[in-house]
Amino acid sequence: MSSIGKDLRKILGDKQVLDLPEDVSAYANDATFYIAKKNPDAVAVPKTTKDVSEIMKYAFKNKIPVVPRGAGSGLAGGCTPVHGGIVLDMKKKDRILEIDHKNMSATVECGVVLNNFNRELARQGLFYPPDPQSMSVCTLGGNIATRAGGPRGVKYGTTERYVTGLEMVMPDGTVMTPGGKVMKMSSGYDITHLMTGSEGTLGVITSAHLRLLPMPAAKRTIVVTCTTVDQAAEIVSEIIAAGAVPAMLEFLIKLAISVLNKYISPPLPLLGEAYLLMELDGSASQVEDETRDIKRICTGMGAVDVRVVTDDAESATYWWARSRLYPGMLQIFKRVITEDITVPRNSIPEFVRRVQAIAASTGAFIGLAGHAGDGNMHPTILHTEISEEMSKKAEKAIEEIIRAGLDLKGTISGEHGIGIHKNKFTELEHGADQIELMKKIKAAFDPHNIMNPGKIWIEEAR
Amino acid sequence: MSSIGKDLRKILGDKQVLDLPEDVSAYANDATFYIAKKNPDAVAVPKTTKDVSEIMKYAFKNKIPVVPRGAGSGLAGGCTPVHGGIVLDMKKKDRILEIDHKNMSATVECGVVLNNFNRELARQGLFYPPDPQSMSVCTLGGNIATRAGGPRGVKYGTTERYVTGLEMVMPDGTVMTPGGKVMKMSSGYDITHLMTGSEGTLGVITSAHLRLLPMPAAKRTIVVTCTTVDQAAEIVSEIIAAGAVPAMLEFLIKLAISVLNKYISPPLPLLGEAYLLMELDGSASQVEDETRDIKRICTGMGAVDVRVVTDDAESATYWWARSRLYPGMLQIFKRVITEDITVPRNSIPEFVRRVQAIAASTGAFIGLAGHAGDGNMHPTILHTEISEEMSKKAEKAIEEIIRAGLDLKGTISGEHGIGIHKNKFTELEHGADQIELMKKIKAAFDPHNIMNPGKIWIEEAR
Repeated sequence: MSSIGKDLRKILGDKQVLDLPEDVSAYANDATFYIAKKNPDAVAVPKTTKDVSEIMKYAFKNKIPVVPRGAGSGLAGGCTPVHGGIVLDMKKKDRILEIDHKNMSATVECGVVLNNFNRELARQGLFYPPDPQSMSVCTLGGNIATRAGGPRGVKYGTTERYVTGLEMVMPDGTVMTPGGKVMKMSSGYDITHLMTGSEGTLGVITSAHLRLLPMPAAKRTIVVTCTTVDQAAEIVSEIIAAGAVPAMLEFLIKLAISVLNKYISPPLPLLGEAYLLMELDGSASQVEDETRDIKRICTGMGAVDVRVVTDDAESATYWWARSRLYPGMLQIFKRVITEDITVPRNSIPEFVRRVQAIAASTGAFIGLAGHAGDGNMHPTILHTEISEEMSKKAEKAIEEIIRAGLDLKGTISGEHGIGIHKNKFTELEHGADQIELMKKIKAAFDPHNIMNPGKIWIEEAR
Repeated sequence: MSSIGKDLRKILGDKQVLDLPEDVSAYANDATFYIAKKNPDAVAVPKTTKDVSEIMKYAFKNKIPVVPRGAGSGLAGGCTPVHGGIVLDMKKKDRILEIDHKNMSATVECGVVLNNFNRELARQGLFYPPDPQSMSVCTLGGNIATRAGGPRGVKYGTTERYVTGLEMVMPDGTVMTPGGKVMKMSSGYDITHLMTGSEGTLGVITSAHLRLLPMPAAKRTIVVTCTTVDQAAEIVSEIIAAGAVPAMLEFLIKLAISVLNKYISPPLPLLGEAYLLMELDGSASQVEDETRDIKRICTGMGAVDVRVVTDDAESATYWWARSRLYPGMLQIFKRVITEDITVPRNSIPEFVRRVQAIAASTGAFIGLAGHAGDGNMHPTILHTEISEEMSKKAEKAIEEIIRAGLDLKGTISGEHGIGIHKNKFTELEHGADQIELMKKIKAAFDPHNIMNPGKIWIEEAR
């Protein structure tokens, strides 16, 4: 039993603390198990904001690292403890506090699972657009901490567009409530959105006010089969330039479709090298108009097939399948490393060409899928075996992919965050001056550097 | 000739520096001339980012206050110098650097006037939604610095939703480029949106990447005449709760309409106590559907008249008139102080009732208009004379309005910013801990406190 565990028991009682080796080892990594760093000394399971505040006061006084954690479904090692310390498992702080239909807003605790929230909203005809594909397990707190996105980013933006206010606990235990239930605010610095995407390095998000939309009246799924990867990328670019705004606009290579086909009913014939999977939404007439426009563009550019799915149950299988892509890949390959480059949308064709060239030159096996509508592409390094040779190829391919993304004026992360998986590349993206400024901002929040240390940038020697 | 002016001439040459008393006095205030504080020692008119950087290096070294300024059309004293020093007049840095149709983004310098930008976009079928009513003069840099909004906030959000990246000059002269042309980013702290709304207190915004939308195919203006102010507020609340999303949803009392009628052709009959002015936009069929729904709601709730304007030229007169409300009021009254409270949208009826009660109890003459669709109301203290008595009444009314807004879980500024007009109230809104945190964030950017000091919160003695 660690001394930290013992101390936490005094604060929280026995039932909310884990510190046996077999228990804490489950908290040594997120979904990127291959970059586990160090077991935490203890795991605290707070149920209230007061619990979190008391834990932070203790950690602040004793300068113990604290790593907030949602479902642990992250893909960047964001909640992987680098120096041990305390993991805050926030999953039990999981109440939907209010759904305020009249104001089109909701107040939720950080541990609410996204799909549970979505189900409750659907019953009331309401809609919260952000849709990270881990939605069956991921928590709203984790979504906010990583600025999570998903296919709907193209039309609806990502998590930050829907967060209007927070309750948070500062590193010293102070509870703060930046923002609020209002839809616009120009009163002081935007702490709410500085916290959004801060990956647990500035404080602990305990609850949030979220903006809601009315559920769109109509939806329509379209599947476009393209001769080549290049053709698919060019069609995406043309759709965006034409001013069409699908709710989702996904790009998938044939390999991805072959993985997804076990969920799609009936399965898609593998007649093309790449596929576009789209959803249009809005009023019934708007969806009709957009379907016509998009069909015209795709056909005009030589797509093999443009399939408008009119059956709701069949549509649902496509989107369920899409959300199973990462788990599906994990069943086939020994290791799957997902990159998260976002480029300006007109650079997608060039980015796709460069990734293909990198696969050829490094010998790495690279899958390619992504939320093409907003420029967010997920090249995926697929390991057929775990070997030093494979790891070296992967490492080389990842660095080249990242450099290609930056060269095209992109970012190294569109929606996953940086964590420890990409922290050696942030200076390359932002420059030393901007990283220095981020460090100063962190120090303003967290003078002892106890909040999730070692993330976003390369840590100086402690 | 001030010594600061002399020094600036060495940096910029004679033509880009003003320091004669009659010149600098024009820079002592923004549109809230009644809260002018102190003439600047000199005004610099940079044309390039390098100019700005050189000025900042000089100011940093000599600890001279620097106040960035766009058109000076702000309503909070945001660019009013409190301690003299240098005003940076950014209006000459006014090039539209790129309109990237394929990527639906634009890159603009900070001094571009919003309407000039809008005209260029319209020619290309593109659309930048934020629409502060000073759009004929205000600059994009000022819009970003104040997180400016306007009527379209209800559907499209305010400026921050469209800024994806910046070029900025730090207080020490370092040039930084947070964000970029990408539509989503989860790579490090969101410096871009910390700058957005920072009112020139963290650094100088020199250019920005802005997200664009396709121009909506159809628009429709609707004018609703309501029996009472209360009825109008209830209709707004019902429209929002029903999930209808007009592009604009403005609330105006009869007094405002009587001011606007000189621009509206034909003028509106003054048959009600309050009016709702709406614009719907989208595809033609979508606009038809929404018109029907909104007409049903308004009629069902007892509106005196629901007028659907089908003539484009007539529609335009309404929106031109709306943008002239503030200047129109200034022609009638000796002084007009506009508040900027935003409340959760279902609290608008209660807020309106409280403002009416405050007018009655204080004896202040209070106009009421606002972007009701997003909860942003502008109670306006109308001075029929300049006298100590009138000022006292106004001061009392303002404080009570602000307390009422906060009591209803609102914010003291939805879109104007805080400046010096409301800086004594930010601690009341955010609490001492959050203001303390904001000060630490400022110190991380601006260790010598030279960037627009004295704004957002009450300054400690220097």
